[in-house]
Amino acid sequence: MSVLVIGSVALDTVKTPLEERADLLGGSASYAAVSASFFSPVNFVGIVGDDFPKAHLDLFQQRGINLDGLEVATGKTFRWSGEYHWDLNTRTTRSVALNVFERFSPKLPLPYRRTPYALLGNISPQLQLQVLAQMERPKLVVCDTMDLWISTAQDALMELLTKVDVVVVNDGEARELTKQTSLIKAGRQILNYGPAFALIKKGEHGCLMFGKDLFFSAPAYPLEDIHDPTGAGDSFAGGFTGYLAQVGDLSPHHLRRAVVFGSVAASYCVEDFSLERLKKLRKEDLDERFRVFKQMSQFEG
Amino acid sequence: MSVLVIGSVALDTVKTPLEERADLLGGSASYAAVSASFFSPVNFVGIVGDDFPKAHLDLFQQRGINLDGLEVATGKTFRWSGEYHWDLNTRTTRSVALNVFERFSPKLPLPYRRTPYALLGNISPQLQLQVLAQMERPKLVVCDTMDLWISTAQDALMELLTKVDVVVVNDGEARELTKQTSLIKAGRQILNYGPAFALIKKGEHGCLMFGKDLFFSAPAYPLEDIHDPTGAGDSFAGGFTGYLAQVGDLSPHHLRRAVVFGSVAASYCVEDFSLERLKKLRKEDLDERFRVFKQMSQFEG
Repeated sequence: MSVLVIGSVALDTVKTPLEERADLLGGSASYAAVSASFFSPVNFVGIVGDDFPKAHLDLFQQRGINLDGLEVATGKTFRWSGEYHWDLNTRTTRSVALNVFERFSPKLPLPYRRTPYALLGNISPQLQLQVLAQMERPKLVVCDTMDLWISTAQDALMELLTKVDVVVVNDGEARELTKQTSLIKAGRQILNYGPAFALIKKGEHGCLMFGKDLFFSAPAYPLEDIHDPTGAGDSFAGGFTGYLAQVGDLSPHHLRRAVVFGSVAASYCVEDFSLERLKKLRKEDLDERFRVFKQMSQFEG
Repeated sequence: MSVLVIGSVALDTVKTPLEERADLLGGSASYAAVSASFFSPVNFVGIVGDDFPKAHLDLFQQRGINLDGLEVATGKTFRWSGEYHWDLNTRTTRSVALNVFERFSPKLPLPYRRTPYALLGNISPQLQLQVLAQMERPKLVVCDTMDLWISTAQDALMELLTKVDVVVVNDGEARELTKQTSLIKAGRQILNYGPAFALIKKGEHGCLMFGKDLFFSAPAYPLEDIHDPTGAGDSFAGGFTGYLAQVGDLSPHHLRRAVVFGSVAASYCVEDFSLERLKKLRKEDLDERFRVFKQMSQFEG
């Protein structure tokens, strides 16, 4: 089944302790859509300016992503610049230029409206709600968010949470959203806000999934070197949702596998800048690392 | 098979954000021995003063622990006082009174020397080496340590690491010992110091086990409330070593299970102050939570 992906498309400038790179393809929708495309057909929703390089459009097309919902507006593409600190776990935003994003008002092409799976990638909750309102009874809605929206758009975010099935946050965001120190309490509390499932990403410590009768703890892939953490969370959400759309089954068995495939996608994403690693990825690579995840977390009863 | 446990025996005063308790049974050997005793016979090595409450000795005896190696010296028992901060992840030592510990020079009773499994609990590496030197070809030697010894007794610690099979450290200690930010790099580097296996405990994030051809990531039990983290690491090491002594088998299959049983023991330990929870524990409780660990970390391939 298909998955609709909405989020930002950006040109990023990223500085790590070792290197700085400018004008990279970035944005939550870019990572999420490419990651999801390894599992399912993707209907893309986003906006770029007329300066957006054709090579990036080619990448989306090579991955078979439907770009009917990608608006090319007069003006400049959204730009983000950030710097990662020595341990790569914290980052500072150096500059943001919304550009064409400022007047983005997503309208879904008619054939998109019945897409059965939706991933509302990281973007303002108002835009996420606007997209969701145009959809016709999706089978599953996953939303991602970030600290910025928790602090500046909490009412819209809380409204959104009553309308989605799965919410994806990182550990800091879970604590900020719930005011709970314990991630276990935070995860359970998020379920009270509406979603049937809450996923808390913990970076190098893996990911926790909470449901009414479900608790799953997935490890992180043991990477020695991370080149650029940008997009890891978006790739996770894309792999998670794409896998579920592929199997069309929301049983605990497949939800657990979806978390692992999301983690696998994220583990590849951070091995290079931008979408460089995802661009070269093959489906077999995902399956191979899935087996490694299994091997490193299994023990016999 | 039996396991020899050496470490500190203390009377602790513990302050958490919610409560303060004085004169509690504590010390690395106390937690480790009681935890190990659920799996295997334990030969205890330690020192207490003549003020040491009989009730604590009774607890060890009720658990069937052999106390022939517990020296009762004239003077006061070792005392430690610490305070945990709001998130329970960091603590400050408020005071330490070594008392009888200052002149502790462990001499193993003759029948102890052939104990096939040894857990060198957290104590100075000089004392750990002294005990090890008195043992006759143990089948497995596990050692625990702490930041204090990494900074004040690094030479003795490095010598010790060439003589043990398994070392247990927490994430901060692994980073301090190796000067590596990445725990994956740190774990692999520790293997170069000598041990065949390195265990890195990550508190609420579980535990990583590194070996030459082995990598295992165990989750943490999803506790909503932690009452007192004191002794969690010692209980982990005790459960880990005790389980291996019970099965007498160092295959990857059993090493993984040992990590999970260690994690189970630690998860019970932190549910109450001192050894209060371990005192009431039954073997069935360990088995039950082992099954929960399995359920929360397994997924199908």
